[in-house]
Amino acid sequence: MALIEALQWRYATKKMNGQIVPQEKLDYILEAAKLAPSSSGLQPYQIFVISNKELQEKIRAVGFDQSQITDASHVLVFAAWDSYSLEKISAVFDRTVKERGLPAEAMDDYKKMLWGMYEPLGQEWHAIHAAKQAYISFGLAIAAAAEQKVDATPMEGFVPAEVDKLLGLNELGLKSAVILTLGYRDEANDWLVNMKKVRTPQNEFITEIK
Amino acid sequence: MALIEALQWRYATKKMNGQIVPQEKLDYILEAAKLAPSSSGLQPYQIFVISNKELQEKIRAVGFDQSQITDASHVLVFAAWDSYSLEKISAVFDRTVKERGLPAEAMDDYKKMLWGMYEPLGQEWHAIHAAKQAYISFGLAIAAAAEQKVDATPMEGFVPAEVDKLLGLNELGLKSAVILTLGYRDEANDWLVNMKKVRTPQNEFITEIK
Repeated sequence: MALIEALQWRYATKKMNGQIVPQEKLDYILEAAKLAPSSSGLQPYQIFVISNKELQEKIRAVGFDQSQITDASHVLVFAAWDSYSLEKISAVFDRTVKERGLPAEAMDDYKKMLWGMYEPLGQEWHAIHAAKQAYISFGLAIAAAAEQKVDATPMEGFVPAEVDKLLGLNELGLKSAVILTLGYRDEANDWLVNMKKVRTPQNEFITEIK
Repeated sequence: MALIEALQWRYATKKMNGQIVPQEKLDYILEAAKLAPSSSGLQPYQIFVISNKELQEKIRAVGFDQSQITDASHVLVFAAWDSYSLEKISAVFDRTVKERGLPAEAMDDYKKMLWGMYEPLGQEWHAIHAAKQAYISFGLAIAAAAEQKVDATPMEGFVPAEVDKLLGLNELGLKSAVILTLGYRDEANDWLVNMKKVRTPQNEFITEIK
């Protein structure tokens, strides 16, 4: 299915039916998320893939009681780095250099330049910047789910600090950024399923400068 | 082309050849960007589509002199709202209600609830939150470009305040969030084109909790 058709098909599913997403489709969605580009290729985030009903209940309790969190087949929590450091940046670039068969010092100057830019911006800026990168990956996971005809609910309605606690993210240097529940629509009980998709009119969304 | 193949094909093009992207492909990419989901459906961002060489030169001058900005067929600037307000939120919900044929007051409670949450978070938080939504759309534009075999360079390397000035964004209540250049790779002169795509290893990227 072409991307546009998939995006027209999808909607923020409000009621899921508990059906399980096959592993191959889940893997496909996660692969799309992994292939997302990120600033300087740092990929400053991870994905927690939750199919543990007890944990889903706990997340729902700090997620405005949204039923999709427990009716979903899988709950993806995108968790972004809480800060950058020269060590973290170096680890990524060292891997890149190795996998590309480049001289070990090939990215040393870039590494220093980047940290020279990031360090003075401070930890709060780092966390926001890392979360933004996670949103690109989140967008691709949404697209991939739609292509696979897997329903999904993009979700910011949760208490991040509480989700962080449930997943032990502080200890890992991570912060929960955004959630995507994966599953299948409960067509008979979803108030949104037949509503028209509404978007900003073209002339308010696009400004061409030729 | 399936999304995963498209994402494997794409890369952050470092050198473009000046070839023009056909209008139908450009429209497709912008449509994907427009179909992106956003928090409460606010779509708090717009896209400036620039194919004016003089303006591209000016953006390049505040964009770390990246050659893709002028060698691109089109430069997309994703510009996010600099703040939320009850008026802006109401305008979106009023349109949604109208297009869905719902009673005029159908979203009044939600509108008030949302503004009740957003108002105390302050303008800086608003701008960051709006920019994050733009990144979802940015991700879908990247995916759509790849599906159409249009090359693209996701770009944060520019001085946002200067791009804001060039596009008169302050006056529109917008801030430049991120840039995507669209065009075609100059295969002979792009150092990145044949480099291996490197991503975080699966076991560091995904944590399953069953």
